[in-house]
Amino acid sequence: MIGAGIVGLACAEELVRGGHDVRVLDPDPGGGATRAAAGMLALGGEAWHGETDLLRLGVASARLWLEYAARLQAASGVNVDLRTEGTLLVGQDHDDLRQVRRTIEVLATEGIAFRELDRPGARADEPTLSRVAGAVLLPEDHNVNPRLVAEALLRLLGDRVVRTRATVLDGRVCLAEGTEFGCDAVVIATGAQARSLVPQVRPVRGETIRLRVIDPPSRVLRARVHGETVYVVPRSDGEVVVGATEEEHAEQPVATLGTVVRLLHAARTLVPGLESAEIVEITARHRPGTPDNGPLLGVTHSPGPVRQVLAVGHYRGGVLLAPLTAQVIRAHVEGGDIPAVARPFVPSRFGPHEISTAADHWKDPMS
Amino acid sequence: MIGAGIVGLACAEELVRGGHDVRVLDPDPGGGATRAAAGMLALGGEAWHGETDLLRLGVASARLWLEYAARLQAASGVNVDLRTEGTLLVGQDHDDLRQVRRTIEVLATEGIAFRELDRPGARADEPTLSRVAGAVLLPEDHNVNPRLVAEALLRLLGDRVVRTRATVLDGRVCLAEGTEFGCDAVVIATGAQARSLVPQVRPVRGETIRLRVIDPPSRVLRARVHGETVYVVPRSDGEVVVGATEEEHAEQPVATLGTVVRLLHAARTLVPGLESAEIVEITARHRPGTPDNGPLLGVTHSPGPVRQVLAVGHYRGGVLLAPLTAQVIRAHVEGGDIPAVARPFVPSRFGPHEISTAADHWKDPMS
Repeated sequence: MIGAGIVGLACAEELVRGGHDVRVLDPDPGGGATRAAAGMLALGGEAWHGETDLLRLGVASARLWLEYAARLQAASGVNVDLRTEGTLLVGQDHDDLRQVRRTIEVLATEGIAFRELDRPGARADEPTLSRVAGAVLLPEDHNVNPRLVAEALLRLLGDRVVRTRATVLDGRVCLAEGTEFGCDAVVIATGAQARSLVPQVRPVRGETIRLRVIDPPSRVLRARVHGETVYVVPRSDGEVVVGATEEEHAEQPVATLGTVVRLLHAARTLVPGLESAEIVEITARHRPGTPDNGPLLGVTHSPGPVRQVLAVGHYRGGVLLAPLTAQVIRAHVEGGDIPAVARPFVPSRFGPHEISTAADHWKDPMS
Repeated sequence: MIGAGIVGLACAEELVRGGHDVRVLDPDPGGGATRAAAGMLALGGEAWHGETDLLRLGVASARLWLEYAARLQAASGVNVDLRTEGTLLVGQDHDDLRQVRRTIEVLATEGIAFRELDRPGARADEPTLSRVAGAVLLPEDHNVNPRLVAEALLRLLGDRVVRTRATVLDGRVCLAEGTEFGCDAVVIATGAQARSLVPQVRPVRGETIRLRVIDPPSRVLRARVHGETVYVVPRSDGEVVVGATEEEHAEQPVATLGTVVRLLHAARTLVPGLESAEIVEITARHRPGTPDNGPLLGVTHSPGPVRQVLAVGHYRGGVLLAPLTAQVIRAHVEGGDIPAVARPFVPSRFGPHEISTAADHWKDPMS
């Protein structure tokens, strides 16, 4: 396994459960997009027309999460803060609300539960809201703290996680110091850093801001605020995560003045009580985007002595998709049956896929 | 010396130069308001009607700074980034500009140099500005990096700086562990933390934000932007400091969403290029405010075996006033002549002053 973000860690833990001898190689476990992620397990909160396969993949993985979180907690002793209060999709003004309703139409066709709330209903449900136009309650859209999930998985994996850089060169796994790492198969789960190996992956910067506030919202708010999208995710420890921007560029992911101001301004318009919130942390990371916004899950046709399996390109869905990805990758490694819902996401949908073997991997500014 | 902010460090260094045996006691040298400060050496940029004594004190200290910075650099080897490009006072709209002109009237009566610039003149002088109404150039308003000044002073003082908490109890200096610290005289330079000893000092929260940007302004900008005051201070290393808020409250000083958004929004309105600036750091600290906004410089009438000298209450002027404060405090310690410009700032102007000897100093949330 190369990459110890939430996807790599979940795959590794599942393979360990299958009796495999696993090592996870990463110079900074849990330090990539996992560290920025808000952890929304949105059944269809990010649904778009034309992405039905991806919506179904998300629904299938979301439905694994209750049991998955319970198992991780029991095994590791780390409470991953799974919250099941549901999510409010909020429209600040009537144009925003129209956009929210368009999302709901997609969910309805997939049988996802929701309940529309008018202005008084929305504010009765969530008194921290400002005078919003309306909202839709998604009772099954839960959330989890990705940093705690990573902590739980790291505890379960113990010294199987090795702090080192690694890549694939000429069909072999190579460590940063130039030595070869012997193995039968390698799972590549390097998030946005997969770009050097998998050209379909592109970096999409995301910024999240962690606040602390006396009176946080009681559940996740996903909103359009005068055309800006923003989410507000309360944690059980009083922290509130505000996100997230999306900017496509290949520079180092840093928090910029313009995006931080836009996010915070939208957040306080939605929830006026955030005005006096303490700013605890600003985090910018790259998400791994792909041409169809879906992940690449499966074996490659690359030559070489080591079987190569991709678990990359999870874009905005790494946390949501982690439990299902782990099962799918285990099936790919073991040559077992691939769940039907995951079959559209084989890497070969972009044509015969080979891991790039360019010699300049180490020069990649992302890695 | 209790307190190793820029004021305490400057006083200590001056006393060492006078041949005194000095120790500076502080659990976190340079970690208070000095860490947040932007380091503007404003001859009169903060002048208000009715505060002529304070304006004159500032002018006298500002005129020491060129030589002071040169001496510190030569002695310590630390370049304190003194910049002499001057300062632009900017009015974003015409109401803002009227307010700028009112400040200038005060400066004119004190013979401070300035030059008015119309809209084209302002943008010719500083091309990073937006379409502002006008500006006033203050060629003698310099700036310095307070963190580097503290570093230079810390190097010069070496192991005379002791990382420990200390206070004055029953006329004696006591360390946190309860032992007495023997000395003939104590200078109290604890900034906003003086509150527990000197009731006239009140905490006024300030927040500054450190940015990094490719094309920073060429000099300090102090502006009113649609009624909001904001400053933008470029450093030689490419960092840009944006500040500063003022909020009076006794809670822990934390950066809040509302004030950060107001500052950043004003800054990018003034300098549109800041939109893409990286946010490097947000710092919130307490400034030591006083009833007349002037510092308390001089001996107290407190009983006890140790002579007690105050160097507190510098409010927004700690960096500006440090060199002059150091000379004044040395004169007070040695019983020498007090410069006329500093005489209005003796602690007794608030009535006979005694150091509080309440036993609950250690419980103070500020200390």
